[in-house]
Amino acid sequence: MSRVDEKPAVVLLSGGLDSATVLALAQHQGYLCYALSLDYGQRHRVELKAAARVAQQAGVVEHKTLPIDLRPIGGSALTDSTIDVPETMDEGIPITYVPARNLLFLSLALGWAEVIGASDLFIGVNAVDYSGYPDCRPEFIDAFQKTSNLATQAGVEGRPFTIHTPLINLSKAEIIKQGSQLGVDYSVTLSCYQADLRGRACGRCDSCRLRKAGFKAANIADPTQYFG
Amino acid sequence: MSRVDEKPAVVLLSGGLDSATVLALAQHQGYLCYALSLDYGQRHRVELKAAARVAQQAGVVEHKTLPIDLRPIGGSALTDSTIDVPETMDEGIPITYVPARNLLFLSLALGWAEVIGASDLFIGVNAVDYSGYPDCRPEFIDAFQKTSNLATQAGVEGRPFTIHTPLINLSKAEIIKQGSQLGVDYSVTLSCYQADLRGRACGRCDSCRLRKAGFKAANIADPTQYFG
Repeated sequence: MSRVDEKPAVVLLSGGLDSATVLALAQHQGYLCYALSLDYGQRHRVELKAAARVAQQAGVVEHKTLPIDLRPIGGSALTDSTIDVPETMDEGIPITYVPARNLLFLSLALGWAEVIGASDLFIGVNAVDYSGYPDCRPEFIDAFQKTSNLATQAGVEGRPFTIHTPLINLSKAEIIKQGSQLGVDYSVTLSCYQADLRGRACGRCDSCRLRKAGFKAANIADPTQYFG
Repeated sequence: MSRVDEKPAVVLLSGGLDSATVLALAQHQGYLCYALSLDYGQRHRVELKAAARVAQQAGVVEHKTLPIDLRPIGGSALTDSTIDVPETMDEGIPITYVPARNLLFLSLALGWAEVIGASDLFIGVNAVDYSGYPDCRPEFIDAFQKTSNLATQAGVEGRPFTIHTPLINLSKAEIIKQGSQLGVDYSVTLSCYQADLRGRACGRCDSCRLRKAGFKAANIADPTQYFG
């Protein structure tokens, strides 16, 4: 992996396992990382505390949390409290899908990147061990990158953006192995969609199941605290 | 213009002249309109009152105003109070450009559209009498439409979105003529970037100049209230 010369980059940081790994990978490549978290009315809002811990441990240049309340739009178990988080994995796109979420988050990251003069964005989408979300696929990322270069002054003026997705072809176990090699402390990350207020995970939602299986397959001890 | 059979559509409504015209055009085509306004920390936040008046006069199905504070990102005279709104029009992209704004607003409109089952989005971008913003050009809109169909469950499942830009090739005078024919009451709209708290316009910023010149070229009396 070639090191970049301390270029600034915006890294989307949810507080989960994937984005913590992405941040470590970006830093390992030599990027000066600006971490962006979104307070979007998510049921598992306690993940923002995890994001703050991850950002602090990593020593990012700046960590910004933007409020963008998606509850008035709803349409997802994550942003509508009347829809339960499922504890079985079914076929198709699950009800935890938040309409246009990654498009929205990348748009905000893009705006910040343009302001600070960064040409590089990092997002922890993954097309292998994922939940079937359409906005985690490479074809979406490619289309977004093209759009970002038409939407912005930087793009128009010949400073194109690159959307980095270093996890996109990795299994959850591979992600955990890579992060562990880089010293990521997964005990401070939170993946659960219905964590309790102390940040303990349910162990039963999609996100918990994928995470649990990942640690098992990686043969690395799972540091997650579970409730119940 | 063919009438649609009362299909739902999301219309981005700023409270300005252009989006009020777009709303009227969409309704004239038979769309059931859901209007979306964004409270993004804009200097001319009083435009949201204009948006509410426009939505009410038009009789939309629903008018939603989402808060998404872009001031922490800044980088524009519209979202950073330390940058003055220019009163002369220079070459190039002006400092009133808000990084990734239309991409962000369309992403939010897309999210809402997906939740209510709408396949049609309307936005009042214009590539003729405009301020040189990159995100008002047809190539951006085309790229966004492609992205939206890769980003969403609806797109993946074969219910593609269409981004309508009925003003894109019209001059400001043509926009005003079309809107006037449809009965748009431009006295309740607000275009000024630095309007006062009573919603009166400065008459000097880019947006005011384009609007003023449009009424003059259309040979229609300008109902705008100016201060100073």
